[in-house]
Amino acid sequence: MISEIKGGITSTPGFRAAGVKAGLKAKGPDLLLLASERGPVPAAGLFTSNLIKGAPLQITQEHLKDGKLGALVANSGCANSYTGKEGLRSAREMAALVAKPLDLKPEDVGVASTGLIGTRLPMDQIRRGIGKALDKLSNSWEAGTNAARAIMTTDTQIKELAVEIEIEDGSKITIGGVAKGAGMIHPELHATMLAFITTDAFITSAGLRTALQKSADRSFNMLSIDRDTSTSDMVLAMSNGLAGNERITKKHPSEKFQAGLDYVTTKFARMIARDGEGATRMVEVHVSGAETEKDARLAARAVAGSNLVKAAIHGSDPNWGRIIAALGRSDASFNPANISLSFENQGKEAPLVREGRPPTNEDLNRAENILKEEEIKITINLGDGRKSATAWGCDLSEEYVEINSMYTT
Amino acid sequence: MISEIKGGITSTPGFRAAGVKAGLKAKGPDLLLLASERGPVPAAGLFTSNLIKGAPLQITQEHLKDGKLGALVANSGCANSYTGKEGLRSAREMAALVAKPLDLKPEDVGVASTGLIGTRLPMDQIRRGIGKALDKLSNSWEAGTNAARAIMTTDTQIKELAVEIEIEDGSKITIGGVAKGAGMIHPELHATMLAFITTDAFITSAGLRTALQKSADRSFNMLSIDRDTSTSDMVLAMSNGLAGNERITKKHPSEKFQAGLDYVTTKFARMIARDGEGATRMVEVHVSGAETEKDARLAARAVAGSNLVKAAIHGSDPNWGRIIAALGRSDASFNPANISLSFENQGKEAPLVREGRPPTNEDLNRAENILKEEEIKITINLGDGRKSATAWGCDLSEEYVEINSMYTT
Repeated sequence: MISEIKGGITSTPGFRAAGVKAGLKAKGPDLLLLASERGPVPAAGLFTSNLIKGAPLQITQEHLKDGKLGALVANSGCANSYTGKEGLRSAREMAALVAKPLDLKPEDVGVASTGLIGTRLPMDQIRRGIGKALDKLSNSWEAGTNAARAIMTTDTQIKELAVEIEIEDGSKITIGGVAKGAGMIHPELHATMLAFITTDAFITSAGLRTALQKSADRSFNMLSIDRDTSTSDMVLAMSNGLAGNERITKKHPSEKFQAGLDYVTTKFARMIARDGEGATRMVEVHVSGAETEKDARLAARAVAGSNLVKAAIHGSDPNWGRIIAALGRSDASFNPANISLSFENQGKEAPLVREGRPPTNEDLNRAENILKEEEIKITINLGDGRKSATAWGCDLSEEYVEINSMYTT
Repeated sequence: MISEIKGGITSTPGFRAAGVKAGLKAKGPDLLLLASERGPVPAAGLFTSNLIKGAPLQITQEHLKDGKLGALVANSGCANSYTGKEGLRSAREMAALVAKPLDLKPEDVGVASTGLIGTRLPMDQIRRGIGKALDKLSNSWEAGTNAARAIMTTDTQIKELAVEIEIEDGSKITIGGVAKGAGMIHPELHATMLAFITTDAFITSAGLRTALQKSADRSFNMLSIDRDTSTSDMVLAMSNGLAGNERITKKHPSEKFQAGLDYVTTKFARMIARDGEGATRMVEVHVSGAETEKDARLAARAVAGSNLVKAAIHGSDPNWGRIIAALGRSDASFNPANISLSFENQGKEAPLVREGRPPTNEDLNRAENILKEEEIKITINLGDGRKSATAWGCDLSEEYVEINSMYTT
């Protein structure tokens, strides 16, 4: 049983947060602070696979070496990426500014930044912002929502979520989180976008790291907005053990905790897909009948990431041949003659290809109608095996081009 | 010495062509015929790496087994791809219809189709069109241009070219060609778009195949319009030996012939990039200073293919951080601190990154001006080695989305 509860990152007992206006963005809050009331607690992080990693990622990876964090500070409006030694100094200073008033060591503080690549952090604003945020730390729902708002860039929707689950030993566990992401999204391997998760589960940092990687592989890593992987992708999770459950470890994982974490990360992936830059449609691609899980994942991501498929969906054009072409170039191995393909929306289904047979005109009309909906599921059966995977994306709109043709100017 | 001469595919002695209206497209010619006056001659082909290959590609690969072709028939308006056994029958029939009147065997005829995937060829129109084309075969420049026009789909420009070169033994050789391509372009490995090349060089089919693959790797395979690889990509070359040069073979290649072929294919790649769907800018990405050629190629293609880089160029936004991010996710290996990066246009240069140091405001202003030009060169030095590569692409415009959101409807 997984039940959604109110709030997000502050719904988990023992965590306080704040989102304040430091002045890095023209309007709205742009600095997030998250603090554990119990000091340093087990923590785990996943970072972009991009060769170029923003300064905050390098610092946070360093601070995570002992598997613990006591707080996290993040800003939007500037990615502090490709900023050389000064960038590293700034990220270190952010950690230090947060640590002292919270009675932590700088190495207990994680740092994240999102925004423009290549410009330096305006440290005066960051310093004032951190001061403000420390004053406003609270475990209220409102504080959590402000924190969620503070990491938005081109996002149009706040992304926060909290769930309550009962695990194997009967303990009730809370998982809460915030996420952001709308463009430069095509996480690879260990990569993700920005998501911060709190839980009161009693779990070791190695157990948390393993669970987080599993969840990310099924959610964030199956997400593609534009096939551009950012230099700042980061997922962090902190667990304070307040739920008092039997300890979860890497060797003794909890399936139910994993399911709860999967639920949160998958829902965030869907929220991000729906809020893709310029997106008017959320697209879920489900590939089944693959010989291996790798084939299923490659196939699903190729379809979700294809510009031509995305543009066709934008125009409600049932151009299924482009889906076939995307499958063909995906590096997945399958027999083209066995493919079945349909579009779905809330119980309605329009089969287009049936074991290699092309659609009738009636099929196409039905598909066109489904493509007018806001949530579209593309279901593909490769007819070759038993493995499956799901990927998420969005349509490609004129607005995506507009947003991205004048980001800095 | 490579000199451009008038015309295209019919500028090579011994080849006749025609481009006629078969009625597959709403307007304009849509069926190309190319015939060797000397019967079957050495020929070589390169085909899409997409797992799903259009019926004509399968037939042409079969017909090329003996390394010879005597004619080629191609249509636009329908790709005859993912059309099952009936599609194969149609492609075979096209070859047979051309063969008999030209005193060839069906196995001497190559077949190509481009257009919508998944719909069947209207064979009545094809039959009439082939009849018309046989009547109109001519070695005039006009016939060559009509042939070039007949394979256009969303292309806005005719793509034809002919050059004369003098090779090592003093012989003069002609190379002529036509090409098409505007969308679904991201050739992979052995893949390409549609290009047909004639030459009067005396060269074996193995020699021609090797030279063609080398040229394609430096040109078509470095081209990305939208990172979608088609199921119909094909390059064919035919050589009739009329130039009377010393025989060129795989073991005894001619550097000058290779240079001539490189010239033609590179120029076609640039023409295709400039005519990318909805494109307002042609973008050339030159990466030098790479440790291996593979790194240089990966890096150049990642930048040329990035939606975010392309959208920024569309808006003349010198968002160099996106280029850095694209390099970082390219799988090329390099040291980020050594990168130098500038924009160029016809002798004007705007350095943006100098061995890792970010640009000044003056640099950014200069770059913004260059980005207003129609041809933009992005020069990247990875500072890690001596290998280089060039890739071509175009900007991403609102019009690309418009074109591709209503292709079938």
